[in-house]
Amino acid sequence: MKNFEFYNPVKILFGEGQIDKIPQEILPYHTILIAYGRGSIKRNGVYEKVVNALNGKKVIEFGGIEPNPRYETLMKAIKLARENNVDFVLAVGGGSVIDGTKFIVASVPFEGEPWDIVSKDVKVENAIPFGTVLTLPATGSEMNAGAVISRDATKEKYAFSSPAVFPKFSVLDPTVTYSLPKHQVANGVVDAFAHVLEQYLTYPSNSTIQDRFAEGILQTLIEVGPKTLENPTDNNLRATFMWSCTMALNGLISTGVPTDWATHMIGHELTAFLGLDHGVTLAIIYPALLTEMAEFKKEKLLQYASRVWYLSGNNLTPERAIEETEKFFRSLGVKTRLPEHGISHTDIKPIVDRFVARGWKLGENQNITPDVVEKILRRALEPYR
Amino acid sequence: MKNFEFYNPVKILFGEGQIDKIPQEILPYHTILIAYGRGSIKRNGVYEKVVNALNGKKVIEFGGIEPNPRYETLMKAIKLARENNVDFVLAVGGGSVIDGTKFIVASVPFEGEPWDIVSKDVKVENAIPFGTVLTLPATGSEMNAGAVISRDATKEKYAFSSPAVFPKFSVLDPTVTYSLPKHQVANGVVDAFAHVLEQYLTYPSNSTIQDRFAEGILQTLIEVGPKTLENPTDNNLRATFMWSCTMALNGLISTGVPTDWATHMIGHELTAFLGLDHGVTLAIIYPALLTEMAEFKKEKLLQYASRVWYLSGNNLTPERAIEETEKFFRSLGVKTRLPEHGISHTDIKPIVDRFVARGWKLGENQNITPDVVEKILRRALEPYR
Repeated sequence: MKNFEFYNPVKILFGEGQIDKIPQEILPYHTILIAYGRGSIKRNGVYEKVVNALNGKKVIEFGGIEPNPRYETLMKAIKLARENNVDFVLAVGGGSVIDGTKFIVASVPFEGEPWDIVSKDVKVENAIPFGTVLTLPATGSEMNAGAVISRDATKEKYAFSSPAVFPKFSVLDPTVTYSLPKHQVANGVVDAFAHVLEQYLTYPSNSTIQDRFAEGILQTLIEVGPKTLENPTDNNLRATFMWSCTMALNGLISTGVPTDWATHMIGHELTAFLGLDHGVTLAIIYPALLTEMAEFKKEKLLQYASRVWYLSGNNLTPERAIEETEKFFRSLGVKTRLPEHGISHTDIKPIVDRFVARGWKLGENQNITPDVVEKILRRALEPYR
Repeated sequence: MKNFEFYNPVKILFGEGQIDKIPQEILPYHTILIAYGRGSIKRNGVYEKVVNALNGKKVIEFGGIEPNPRYETLMKAIKLARENNVDFVLAVGGGSVIDGTKFIVASVPFEGEPWDIVSKDVKVENAIPFGTVLTLPATGSEMNAGAVISRDATKEKYAFSSPAVFPKFSVLDPTVTYSLPKHQVANGVVDAFAHVLEQYLTYPSNSTIQDRFAEGILQTLIEVGPKTLENPTDNNLRATFMWSCTMALNGLISTGVPTDWATHMIGHELTAFLGLDHGVTLAIIYPALLTEMAEFKKEKLLQYASRVWYLSGNNLTPERAIEETEKFFRSLGVKTRLPEHGISHTDIKPIVDRFVARGWKLGENQNITPDVVEKILRRALEPYR
């Protein structure tokens, strides 16, 4: 186990009706900006509950934060917040709204060009406090201090993080997720599953507790993911799925272990250039990457095969574990090959070119060089089976 | 899964040499009280490292906090802290020193009789900030907001908790635990194991993630507990054991689930009346309690038997799981029956009398009435095998 720091001060308010606890969490604040997405919260009743909870405060609204929240959109929210002296932001939505809100709260008091926060890793020292009401379990953003922001003009998608952008609180009410479209839930399962793999499928590091927790989240997602799709109003399934997603990326399972994150880095470019949903990109890249890197990940792949997929005997191989992983993604209705999205060799060229230009070396061993990225993308271009 | 709140703002500094990070954590404070136990930190080099880290601050010392920290002792520390306007306390030791420190920091600004905090559950609103350097993994006190305090004069042992007594930071350096006496490590393994059981071996509550995490900690303790005793200077084993103990009682695995805690309540009386070490009381009471309550815990006992002890077929029974549990405690060198400590029927009478007088109903179903407590103690009086 490597040395590590762990700090996560987010207060979680979990369960049906917890939106009602928001007033006691925002006592010191006066002007609240509600940040949300494309209006589903107005159709499912969440908006009304949130507005009731903010009774007595000055409330400003900013809707229209899109999936893969865009710098161009968020700059408008930053202007609005500055003009109104907003002192607290309430993000109501999924990971994109919460990530976008993190950029907003960091940018409002920031004196330079906000894009530098993401593109140049400029340190965020201050931020307006904010809370979240999670409506789409997937990214874990509700209990971490990271965000991913896209810029339309340059087709860039970058991550930033700072302890200043931990939410003060996050409301996780499984009942508000009942009306989610199936494909969003399926993408959420893949996203959470991939988050765990990025922190687990590397090389052994004598981190027994972290491995067991990671395996526990994977086992849980395998158990409840498909069932959640079939029984959208089963509260226990929804609750378990929601809590799994939060646990998958709140810093706990990455304590003291090597991490990969290459699948996310490659997937971000598929989104930036080709507009694929984030979860979809992970379902495509992960099987291809594991196949390409199986040699370096062999020990953990075998552990994963045994403990998560219960493979044994002749089936206890990295290949079988990768097969099961891809089959799981497909069982959720998520396609795992580029041609299934009408993407061909010519489409991936600008992505490979960008990795070549950057010269990045990705993965836990920094051995996923641009040529390896190309090999992974070529594997993802092969048809399934 | 039940509704829950989860909040844990303790910053963990984990690994060799992390004591050196203390200065940056205590920048705003001027007068530091070092609280410690009976001097082992002066023999193993920890004291010197801590004093170096406090260079430039006014430092006051209070040593002599005993196992099962006593109100009578702690009142002296409270007086000392008040006289010197201490604004930060650094607890250096195991669970007893940290628990004692929680009582000190809560009591210094408290206007009434401090004992009311533990005996009458008077709410703690303020406390002096404090940090910890953990030297004995076991209780989890380094990452939670609870403490157990004893009063000699009345043979009482009570718990209290308040968000005001979360440590600001805790240093977990596995190397400082290398020189611990074997029986303390063994008791620590039992303590952490029992903490998990109290939050896991109840009745099913559709809390898949929490169950998997609990099972992961138990599996880890079974794997590394005995090895740690045999290889006291193996850093990976020590680190894994240390992190297991913290995870066992930091609020994570109790989110949304029923909890028991009867073994601890009964064990506390064995300590208060008969002076047995805390871990030892748990090793004695747990097997007896599980046997007595097997009917009510059957479903979770079978899950525990299967997932933690890998029992199957004819061996998949509550009885076999309980046998394995007791065998595990004994494999660590911890005795599990009262007669092995020279304790007989007459010795337990005042304990039973106290439960009768209190009329408490313990356990996740509140069905461990005083007569059931007596039955459990009688089972613990039977010889092993």
